[in-house]
Amino acid sequence: MNRTLVRLLEDRAAELRDRHGISFRITGIASRTLGWIADPSGLTLTPQVLELKGRDFSRAVTGADSGAALATDVKTWLAAADHIRAALDHGAHAITANKGPIVHAYRELRDLAASKGKRFLFESTVMDGVPIFSLFDQLPAIHLQGFHGILNSTTNVILSQMEQGLTFEEALKKAQELGIAETDATHDIDGWDATVKTAALITVLMDVPVKLDQIQREGIRDLTPQAVRTAKRDGWPFKLVCRARRTSSSGKPSVEVSIGPEKVLSTQPMAKIAGASSYIYFETDIFPGLAITEENPGLYATAYGLLADFIRAATE
Amino acid sequence: MNRTLVRLLEDRAAELRDRHGISFRITGIASRTLGWIADPSGLTLTPQVLELKGRDFSRAVTGADSGAALATDVKTWLAAADHIRAALDHGAHAITANKGPIVHAYRELRDLAASKGKRFLFESTVMDGVPIFSLFDQLPAIHLQGFHGILNSTTNVILSQMEQGLTFEEALKKAQELGIAETDATHDIDGWDATVKTAALITVLMDVPVKLDQIQREGIRDLTPQAVRTAKRDGWPFKLVCRARRTSSSGKPSVEVSIGPEKVLSTQPMAKIAGASSYIYFETDIFPGLAITEENPGLYATAYGLLADFIRAATE
Repeated sequence: MNRTLVRLLEDRAAELRDRHGISFRITGIASRTLGWIADPSGLTLTPQVLELKGRDFSRAVTGADSGAALATDVKTWLAAADHIRAALDHGAHAITANKGPIVHAYRELRDLAASKGKRFLFESTVMDGVPIFSLFDQLPAIHLQGFHGILNSTTNVILSQMEQGLTFEEALKKAQELGIAETDATHDIDGWDATVKTAALITVLMDVPVKLDQIQREGIRDLTPQAVRTAKRDGWPFKLVCRARRTSSSGKPSVEVSIGPEKVLSTQPMAKIAGASSYIYFETDIFPGLAITEENPGLYATAYGLLADFIRAATE
Repeated sequence: MNRTLVRLLEDRAAELRDRHGISFRITGIASRTLGWIADPSGLTLTPQVLELKGRDFSRAVTGADSGAALATDVKTWLAAADHIRAALDHGAHAITANKGPIVHAYRELRDLAASKGKRFLFESTVMDGVPIFSLFDQLPAIHLQGFHGILNSTTNVILSQMEQGLTFEEALKKAQELGIAETDATHDIDGWDATVKTAALITVLMDVPVKLDQIQREGIRDLTPQAVRTAKRDGWPFKLVCRARRTSSSGKPSVEVSIGPEKVLSTQPMAKIAGASSYIYFETDIFPGLAITEENPGLYATAYGLLADFIRAATE
């Protein structure tokens, strides 16, 4: 995704300068697998440079001299939170596409950013770069009661393919060929990705603490092709549905959460969410039903979330 | 609607104070039909006060001593633009639920507000208070290519009722009883409301000048109950659809616009938009399809747009 971000930055460089007064140089790039590279005077991003060289990732973020440090693709969540903390501590804004730090350290990182006068932004963690979190910044004095939706593309593509007659393994392979599923898609298939996104939304938008191990979670691994096809034929296609609803437990604010396959009546909007599209339906006190659909995200959709966060941080 | 806004302000007063650091007093109220009242020390909003007394509206806005002047419900568009201009000239933010000034004077009022360091906000003009305009503030460096949607509640309620067997007149009466259609619903029925909303979206979000008399517009007056019922039965219900698409005319940026009844395939999201719900589908270069649905807006939905604008202006 970071290569896509580099292409998008290059593509929009003139617009960033002319419309937003932003000029930028890339001073450091780090990858958990490839290593890192840094140069305060700016890197020229040749394909060779993008191969990086094996060095310790943890020093890379602090190598950025200013502006926004983009810490993404780090799979170890606590390490990711450490990198964000390091960036903020060194006076940089921190932007991430990694959901883990939101679930594990949101309040701490939010407060740290505020104390440093910097931004901690994460718009690409849910629904690619669709500005879900920013939308709620634009909904002051509103109370989110709950939400439901389809937030994981890989399982949605697999279910769509299984409806057309493929086995689970064939459908997974197809999703991988389409570039939607990763080589190891366990995280998606077992519902973890959807669970973490749901937890991130609850943490930020509902301000209720939630622990991943308290969330009722079921993936799509146990659905047979027969069950998936029959459900579709009968007008109740299976979808991996995320649900959250505000409640109270012994007088304390709480939230009921579930992630799992559900048969969705075909006249419901969720039943129409095909392939890599996603959907979320918010219940608020002012708007009983406010729904957002992202149809067939383009190549730049996730990288755009990082770019938009970068513009937000740079123009504040 | 302004009475609803007063109730909503009272309901959220503690939250405005505690969460947003906003305390307020209402120093003036004006109505084209009822007159105006003003008191710099603040009005106590008894039902008697809300009856106002007949005085010249035009002096009311300038009677506000500070904060945001809410100029709404003024049906004469040019007069409305005058009131907004007066508010900005006197150093107040200006917030409106009136679409007219957007279509007729957006650039001038935007630039005037900027030159005064004040805000000109109008979030409740389209889709009640759903933050459509603010959403695009959160989509920097994105290019809107076009949109389509259902933006007028009155015609949508009338069509829904006609599908259930009512005549046009009966359906209109029902919409009026539900408090959705005004006594004189000509503006809605002939497609003017949808046209002006579409023009406002084009003006602000696509930055292309558009004149109302250049927009192809057709209302729902000529649809027979038979045609509406047959279309619904056949799976192609009639909807009053707004469409806009960026194009170019002799090398200059332009936009193709149409407002009119269309038969919408029942599997399409627009076909599911019933009653007072509304829908918009944006085509952008980053997100090929980004759709927002507002289901059954609550009592406070439109007034909320004014409240949210007030919070935006006051906390900037």
